[in-house]
Amino acid sequence: MLDQIKRKRDLGKTEYKELVPELRSRLIILQQELRKQKFPVLVLFAGVDGAGKHETVDLLNTWMDPRWLITRAYGQPTEDERQRPTYWRYWRDLPPHGQLGLYLSAWYSRPLLDYVKGKITLRQFNRHVESINAFERNLTDNGALILKYYMLLDKKGQEKRLKKLASDPLTAWQVKPTDWENWALYDRFIDVSDQLISATHIEGAEWQVIDSSAQRRRSIEVAESIHTRIEQHIESGGRDIRRTPTRYAPAKRRALDEMSMKQSLTKTAYKEELSQLSARLYQLQHQAYLRHISAVVMFEGWDAAGKGGVIRRLTGAMDARHYQVIPIAAPTDEEKAHHYLWRFWRHLPRAGRVTLYDRSWYGRVLVERVEGFAKDADWQRAYREINEFEKELVDSGIVLCKFWMHITQEEQLRRFKEREQIAYKAWKLTDEDWRNREKWDDYTDAVHDMVELTGTPEAPWTLVEGDQKYFARIKVMREVCRRLEDALDRCG
Amino acid sequence: MLDQIKRKRDLGKTEYKELVPELRSRLIILQQELRKQKFPVLVLFAGVDGAGKHETVDLLNTWMDPRWLITRAYGQPTEDERQRPTYWRYWRDLPPHGQLGLYLSAWYSRPLLDYVKGKITLRQFNRHVESINAFERNLTDNGALILKYYMLLDKKGQEKRLKKLASDPLTAWQVKPTDWENWALYDRFIDVSDQLISATHIEGAEWQVIDSSAQRRRSIEVAESIHTRIEQHIESGGRDIRRTPTRYAPAKRRALDEMSMKQSLTKTAYKEELSQLSARLYQLQHQAYLRHISAVVMFEGWDAAGKGGVIRRLTGAMDARHYQVIPIAAPTDEEKAHHYLWRFWRHLPRAGRVTLYDRSWYGRVLVERVEGFAKDADWQRAYREINEFEKELVDSGIVLCKFWMHITQEEQLRRFKEREQIAYKAWKLTDEDWRNREKWDDYTDAVHDMVELTGTPEAPWTLVEGDQKYFARIKVMREVCRRLEDALDRCG
Repeated sequence: MLDQIKRKRDLGKTEYKELVPELRSRLIILQQELRKQKFPVLVLFAGVDGAGKHETVDLLNTWMDPRWLITRAYGQPTEDERQRPTYWRYWRDLPPHGQLGLYLSAWYSRPLLDYVKGKITLRQFNRHVESINAFERNLTDNGALILKYYMLLDKKGQEKRLKKLASDPLTAWQVKPTDWENWALYDRFIDVSDQLISATHIEGAEWQVIDSSAQRRRSIEVAESIHTRIEQHIESGGRDIRRTPTRYAPAKRRALDEMSMKQSLTKTAYKEELSQLSARLYQLQHQAYLRHISAVVMFEGWDAAGKGGVIRRLTGAMDARHYQVIPIAAPTDEEKAHHYLWRFWRHLPRAGRVTLYDRSWYGRVLVERVEGFAKDADWQRAYREINEFEKELVDSGIVLCKFWMHITQEEQLRRFKEREQIAYKAWKLTDEDWRNREKWDDYTDAVHDMVELTGTPEAPWTLVEGDQKYFARIKVMREVCRRLEDALDRCG
Repeated sequence: MLDQIKRKRDLGKTEYKELVPELRSRLIILQQELRKQKFPVLVLFAGVDGAGKHETVDLLNTWMDPRWLITRAYGQPTEDERQRPTYWRYWRDLPPHGQLGLYLSAWYSRPLLDYVKGKITLRQFNRHVESINAFERNLTDNGALILKYYMLLDKKGQEKRLKKLASDPLTAWQVKPTDWENWALYDRFIDVSDQLISATHIEGAEWQVIDSSAQRRRSIEVAESIHTRIEQHIESGGRDIRRTPTRYAPAKRRALDEMSMKQSLTKTAYKEELSQLSARLYQLQHQAYLRHISAVVMFEGWDAAGKGGVIRRLTGAMDARHYQVIPIAAPTDEEKAHHYLWRFWRHLPRAGRVTLYDRSWYGRVLVERVEGFAKDADWQRAYREINEFEKELVDSGIVLCKFWMHITQEEQLRRFKEREQIAYKAWKLTDEDWRNREKWDDYTDAVHDMVELTGTPEAPWTLVEGDQKYFARIKVMREVCRRLEDALDRCG
């Protein structure tokens, strides 16, 4: 893509000065329009050092209203960031709906430089490309607009710009020794850039190459392009553009029907096992803490299936300083103004810690599907999005346990009635529980799809026969112990 | 306080086992009651190592519903935490209304240990005590319930407990070499603890000393106490208990009337000064970045007083990667569920960065006061709370600039009319602006109080004559430059 760029003459100073006021006023008006929209805009700048990435971002901050803009540049990951999956910091920083985020290189920076300098193999480079595409496609599929600009200068032009920056005391600090090292690698840098932007030039997140030799033209070109693209996105209805075709086929296997729901344990056996498993879990979690192994333990299940009880058994066997229980109810308005996975990303555990999710991201393909809160295309596409999300957790070393707490309809009825009668359980039973119960069959279909479409080798489901609480709790405890043990074994 | 504790015999196992189920059920029911309340509960455990702080917290996590609980222990501050004021991490972690936070030592830990080991002077120790009291009083005054338990063991008892912990492979890791060092300093530890808890035994955040030699009794005693205190707090109306008497006297000086509103600059003078100040600010901010000096620049002012314009001039002269503009509009629901200062704490800049607040915490004593959103006692008490908040920022090294953008009523009318006519300004004008205008006199009183009661030597106000935009912008730019220069001078 980079060799197709044609150099154009720059704009004259007067011409430029005449264009700016009207363009700025259009940008400001557009920002107000954008604020009403239900999608965010990400504008990313990459390219040759000295080609004006920073200047453009600074300029846009001056031209636009900085109150509805965020700007992000990323250096070495901070301690907090290193303790989470690579994309955690990018997810955390996503602009809310109706706002703009300006990004300097961001998720493109490391793969590009590391490959240019031979620090990673082609295979690793390609894996980065896959991650980038998965991330961006996930955002655009959910309505985000992503604009990517590659700022290009030829080798001579770069040398000239770097020298000019270095000679001005106001900008000299911008030129670092690494910039000259990179300059020496110019041809390789362009070559790898070309590969990278070709491989990530996906629909809905296309690259535009900007000739940076003409500085004034560059600024106008970028701002005009941002204006046009946002305007088009608003006109075309924003969220309704679904680019990735959804390949959804309902589950073939009906896994819930195959469960042996009669399994049970005696009270004595339960007590003994619970006490053994608790001691084991306590030690395993402490070992995991020392070795910086994090875990995510996630529960889905029918109302009254015993999620709370099993969570209490797990936490009872862990150091309270090392875990956090996140109950998932209706999203807060900050959460509503973001991608549906954002609220789960934000609670990912630090190194050595455990996050227990009481209900989870599977809400997308359960309640949102059954109640019609999500459109068909949304929940059908979510299986893949969820698989990719979980893959990132697992790839970053997080131990991920997913439990479906299953009970029969009869057992649920019995528990509802019991809840009506026991004072300290009454709060748990709401009208919604009765309403959900009426949609048992729809939910069953949704669970079958979920289990089949998101049960991957890296992130398998554990279906828990929950009619007898003793049996269910022991099964969960045992599984969590086993998974932690495996992880500890792997790290030697 | 610590010498008054009387040792009691422990509960028998059977007796204990009989008490627990009913107590747990009461705790669970109470948590549901608490969830409806508009205040948070903080439960803090301090005391002798081995006296069961961790065990108690773990136990409470098992007895109560962990979904409405957060538990926090603090080690060495992380990178993110070190870059902010000391109390930033405690503010960030405050439980939302209706929830419980369990804290292990937390803000008591460092002052206590550092003074025991002679690392800080009595004067520094006393300053810590003041900070603790200011923090806790601020929370309780705004409705929070703070329960503090000091877990006591005598020297022999501690030795025994530490040996017992060390001998069990499940708990051996809890005993660190420092625990034995602290044990050797037992008498001094108790002496300093006694001073610390006496000095922080304030109304609404009282200490309760727990005899930890009797382990079962200890658990029941703490849980019963938590239950009783929360129940009482709910019954007494929670938020309505205002403990600190408010000493409010309206301002004597009418500072706004003394401003010379005719001041102006010619366009030529403005352009020249702006370009010089921009270059200066750019360099100063970059120097501040390199030296890890953070800044908070905050704007209050009449509607249409030119806040947006001046913010754009400031940001136009800064590296977009180093600042963040935070527009303060209606709080999100997460923000509403916290202390009114929480939303400002969360955006404090990292080292070397700048946060610009477009409107601020002064909303409490401006719009909330005038519109009656805050009760008299709330806004009257807020002056002191704000002074303490700003003192913490300044003490931590943050450069704090506070601007009141002032315009006359006539100028405001002119600008409102102008906004009605210019397309890219029309969005700024709302019905609320016209309504606010009708309350000009009430707002004027509020501004006078604000300027007089929160204009401290460390955090002075700059009143900006804003009828002419050129003059106003230059005045602000110059002040920000001056303050950064001062800070850079101080750090040599």
